[in-house]
Amino acid sequence: MTRKKNAIISVFDKTNLGDIANFLIKKNFTIYSTGGSSQYLKKLKIPHVEISNYTKQKEILGGRVKTLHPKIFGGLLSTGSSSHQKELKKEKIINFDVLIVNLYPFSDTVRNSKNSHKIIEMIDIGGHSLIRAAVKNYKKTVPIVDPLDYQKFIKNFPQTEISKKKYAIKAIQQVTEYDVSITNWFQGIQTEEYSLRYGENPQQKAIALINNKSFTQVSGHKKLSYNNLLDLDAAINIAYGSKANENICTIIKHNIPCGGAMKKTQKESYKKALMGDPLSAFGGIVAFNKKLSANTASLLVKNYYEVIAAPDFEKEALTILKTKSNLRVLKVKKFINKVEQRSIFAGALIQDTNRKVSSIKAINGNNKLKKNKIDFFINILKYIKSNSIALFDQDSLISQSGGQTSRVDALHSCFYKLGLRHNKKVIKKLFLFSDAFFPFTDSLEFIKKQKLKIDIYTPMGSQNDSKIIDYVKRNNLNCFKISDRHFKH
Amino acid sequence: MTRKKNAIISVFDKTNLGDIANFLIKKNFTIYSTGGSSQYLKKLKIPHVEISNYTKQKEILGGRVKTLHPKIFGGLLSTGSSSHQKELKKEKIINFDVLIVNLYPFSDTVRNSKNSHKIIEMIDIGGHSLIRAAVKNYKKTVPIVDPLDYQKFIKNFPQTEISKKKYAIKAIQQVTEYDVSITNWFQGIQTEEYSLRYGENPQQKAIALINNKSFTQVSGHKKLSYNNLLDLDAAINIAYGSKANENICTIIKHNIPCGGAMKKTQKESYKKALMGDPLSAFGGIVAFNKKLSANTASLLVKNYYEVIAAPDFEKEALTILKTKSNLRVLKVKKFINKVEQRSIFAGALIQDTNRKVSSIKAINGNNKLKKNKIDFFINILKYIKSNSIALFDQDSLISQSGGQTSRVDALHSCFYKLGLRHNKKVIKKLFLFSDAFFPFTDSLEFIKKQKLKIDIYTPMGSQNDSKIIDYVKRNNLNCFKISDRHFKH
Repeated sequence: MTRKKNAIISVFDKTNLGDIANFLIKKNFTIYSTGGSSQYLKKLKIPHVEISNYTKQKEILGGRVKTLHPKIFGGLLSTGSSSHQKELKKEKIINFDVLIVNLYPFSDTVRNSKNSHKIIEMIDIGGHSLIRAAVKNYKKTVPIVDPLDYQKFIKNFPQTEISKKKYAIKAIQQVTEYDVSITNWFQGIQTEEYSLRYGENPQQKAIALINNKSFTQVSGHKKLSYNNLLDLDAAINIAYGSKANENICTIIKHNIPCGGAMKKTQKESYKKALMGDPLSAFGGIVAFNKKLSANTASLLVKNYYEVIAAPDFEKEALTILKTKSNLRVLKVKKFINKVEQRSIFAGALIQDTNRKVSSIKAINGNNKLKKNKIDFFINILKYIKSNSIALFDQDSLISQSGGQTSRVDALHSCFYKLGLRHNKKVIKKLFLFSDAFFPFTDSLEFIKKQKLKIDIYTPMGSQNDSKIIDYVKRNNLNCFKISDRHFKH
Repeated sequence: MTRKKNAIISVFDKTNLGDIANFLIKKNFTIYSTGGSSQYLKKLKIPHVEISNYTKQKEILGGRVKTLHPKIFGGLLSTGSSSHQKELKKEKIINFDVLIVNLYPFSDTVRNSKNSHKIIEMIDIGGHSLIRAAVKNYKKTVPIVDPLDYQKFIKNFPQTEISKKKYAIKAIQQVTEYDVSITNWFQGIQTEEYSLRYGENPQQKAIALINNKSFTQVSGHKKLSYNNLLDLDAAINIAYGSKANENICTIIKHNIPCGGAMKKTQKESYKKALMGDPLSAFGGIVAFNKKLSANTASLLVKNYYEVIAAPDFEKEALTILKTKSNLRVLKVKKFINKVEQRSIFAGALIQDTNRKVSSIKAINGNNKLKKNKIDFFINILKYIKSNSIALFDQDSLISQSGGQTSRVDALHSCFYKLGLRHNKKVIKKLFLFSDAFFPFTDSLEFIKKQKLKIDIYTPMGSQNDSKIIDYVKRNNLNCFKISDRHFKH
């Protein structure tokens, strides 16, 4: 003789509830229900038992405690073992075989209310506990948390152990995501899922999880793309990463800084940043560290950019930028991430974001750059893919090359681009930054051959350090040690 | 008159439990406890009430149901409101003000056992529910989940609302991480935290989360670094990403393929991959798609590499590789991630991994490459940073350049490196791959000027497509459209 089957129904989302409830009745289940679900079943004239009639415990604390009762959890957590079954009998507890529960999405609560009392009240305790109990005991108690699964359950009744496990996986995933939302809310992190048309390429589906305290789009009818957001990351880290009183502007293309300048006025900072590589700037992202002036805005709209980002905008500046309906304008409040995660084939890599402020020590000659310039230049260097070489004049990026497997190739490409876009003859002084040590003196020979006045800033740490130092001194090159390596891949 | 305070103690980790329990007694709390915690308190002669004496419900189902009782949850979830307090009085429920609970780490369970029945038995339901209830009601009921917090609690007693919230945040974080472990286990994902000396640079702290089904280190006394793991990602995606019967070898440096070949024999595939850029290969990562032969191993040890990866190793091959104690040798089972996540300043970007197999369509001329070669070449292209250009001979990578903000710069750098490392005069035929469309005909002019036999493979989609097609036909260049763009940043 098989024992009679029992199901619990306690759902927020009542979609298709009649279908599954009627099916359970047809299969001779007794349904136990509570609150809104019970009222809904009543309307549909589906017979069921009120949970409080079974537990003899009425709902207390305005519904805060309804199902948290040993008669419920005993029935969810019991196995078919004779010792379990004997205990249940003694305690007058019935077995539950199916649990139909879903929770009001906490992320919707947070979106729809600013009242923290109301939000806390929405944290589900009972339903969440029911689901976890059924997950633990899924071989006996099937948890169904998604109304879209009712038809599958009906079609495949009775479920195999493999299919029961699938219900358990979906259920534990759902409650975990629910608690991630709660955790984020408690920490003041409000992450919104931002749908993207696609990822880095059209064949890649993608979404973004954006902290809604980080930025807001104040103009532009098009949404940001995956690549825009990735570029914005570099742009904001460079623009906001330097604690400078002066005006910073940076231009990013293909996630690489192709322009960057620090000047007294914002307009000058933009003009100098653009001059670094006017060809690459086309279609790029431009970021500023200070409120955007109308002055700068009128210059910006003369070129084609995809995104302009700044902490704030003069009213008139915004009016000017809004004349370009395709131009996305972002008010970026602050940056959030101090830790960055990146997937690899085998899992994930998690590291602190490279916010280290490096110091400089002379190897030969006198340093002519002020500390805030050095910090800014290194901030730019940090966002050029390794191996990287960057050339600066007194206050801006003039040429750069990265993504190279050999340092001397990066040097060559950097000087080649310098010659393409600038008149080498009028260049008075250059500051060359390397993201890691020179492995051999060939790089220094190459720099010397350029016959330009170049001060070199580089980390050390090569086996050939003594040869490098020797070469620098013998040839009287101005050379300064950067305290840290700044790889970026 | 203030009411009497009550605390629940139910801990797995009993570190410092005497300190906090004695303190609570001193502060006139009544302690309610159960199971092992109660026994421990008895030994310390700390007075307390057995929870089952209070609920009048004995533990059932071998401890599966102990605390899941309205008299417990009512006391955890009650606020100070008069309606709540009236109800509690009527139901003979007491208020709980402090909850001291910690759970046996589920990740340890999984590490220490392969028995799924035992693992499931370790999924905590009661303690977890207690913690979540206290989190919801943290303003009244402080949840303490970490024994290291007892001293802080004692020192700052009574806690402010701000400090209570901090306990709640820690508690919800802990139970969420606990459920993430369970979710991973259910899905068959076993992630191990792999400590790293540092991240991309020494100033960045880092850890790796590695799926222990993905690879095992079979030789080398040094552990993998952050940059090794990042390079391994590119290496494995290229080596394992092509469904080829032939032998594939790829060499990665700075997360960029500097070598890649597909040949009949493994030894030839390695020799050709190395010939692509012998300079950059130094210190790189070498990956193969097939079991490593002793033959190949004896060649490999002649050069300096950091990592060798393959699906398996001939016994003798391993013996040969083990002679280099610094060389890390990895047996890579399979790749896992189909979805990749990447942090940005404002949150995270999540996208499908680019595993698209593109098709080719002639614009002008006849394609001379077999499908498996094209797939392999595009797989290499996918891992060169954008804008990227790669040059191949019949079966291997000959030169590449990426990380460029302008396509024509990438072309220039690629051909410059070709000339540096290869004798252009002996090159019979080249296959040029571009990761995205040529925006102008200047790139084609540049290619034509090289005076080499070059077949061009490129995605289309520029506003100047018609000009590009026109140029290709007029100059009778062999040119083929790749169906998809393959940006990588």
